[in-house]
Amino acid sequence: MSLNRKLRIAIDMDEVMADTIAKFITLYDERHQTKISLGDMHGKEFREILPPHLSNSLREYINERGFFRDLPVMPGCQDVVKALHEKYDVYIASSAMEFKYSLEDKLDWLNEHFPFISWTNIIFCGHKILDVDVMIDDRIKNFVTFKGRKLLFTSPHNLLINDFERVNTWDDVATKLLHE
Amino acid sequence: MSLNRKLRIAIDMDEVMADTIAKFITLYDERHQTKISLGDMHGKEFREILPPHLSNSLREYINERGFFRDLPVMPGCQDVVKALHEKYDVYIASSAMEFKYSLEDKLDWLNEHFPFISWTNIIFCGHKILDVDVMIDDRIKNFVTFKGRKLLFTSPHNLLINDFERVNTWDDVATKLLHE
Repeated sequence: MSLNRKLRIAIDMDEVMADTIAKFITLYDERHQTKISLGDMHGKEFREILPPHLSNSLREYINERGFFRDLPVMPGCQDVVKALHEKYDVYIASSAMEFKYSLEDKLDWLNEHFPFISWTNIIFCGHKILDVDVMIDDRIKNFVTFKGRKLLFTSPHNLLINDFERVNTWDDVATKLLHE
Repeated sequence: MSLNRKLRIAIDMDEVMADTIAKFITLYDERHQTKISLGDMHGKEFREILPPHLSNSLREYINERGFFRDLPVMPGCQDVVKALHEKYDVYIASSAMEFKYSLEDKLDWLNEHFPFISWTNIIFCGHKILDVDVMIDDRIKNFVTFKGRKLLFTSPHNLLINDFERVNTWDDVATKLLHE
């Protein structure tokens, strides 16, 4: 960590900035008349709680062009990321490379909802091998080789994990990174 | 730098893996019957040696879908990157985010010419804030906050720069990273 520069924060997109699960729930309701409850997801991935005959469909939907373009923004995210952006060197880092058609959608989504984030500060990758000081992510796999401060953003699939500093909401992020 | 893992190498795409300048030369010959010589580029950017009435066109061409899809591969690059991939943890890192339509093209190009590189090891970004040990790049701006080993890959625009360890060709990269 250099002391000559602002601290760098890397913020994940899916299930942190963007409510991917809300989109899944809407999609399975509309296309399959299948109601999925967030309560059923405690500690599980979304695909694990789908009826068996639908479990392979999730990957197909994620691979559709447009899937990531209209995700709802997580509550409070815009205001807090804006304030973080004024205090820190904020990067958006999404493990997007697995899904080719997500790349343009995610860039358009960021430009629509977070226009103050420059293209210079957007990273689409696989492994998050980033030289940053703080990482906000819902996936602990992204923390494995990361030596900085790790903030685990609560998502149903990670509710059973107790080994990391946790933020449940964007208000929690503000408390820890703006008000402390 | 951790000693528990393979060294990580980040390799740039344009003018390092992909011969972007060769594409520019072909394009201005075909569309404008304008012959550009590599010799005129010594220490200059390509746009600087275009006739004044064409200097703004370069950015338009780069923004066209498909521009980055058919770039020639730099001589020797495939074999050396394959050998590096077997010895090191190789990442491809391109400052692609400025040009939205380059993202899918660059991913398709990598999958065609470097199919052994996993999606997990591809990074499209702006600023290259990467936690890697070696960076191979033709742009010194990417070295500014990087503390690892910097290998400046020779390109006409950087010929007047003397402050970095230089590799002129992929054979030079092999000599330094495979045979030393």
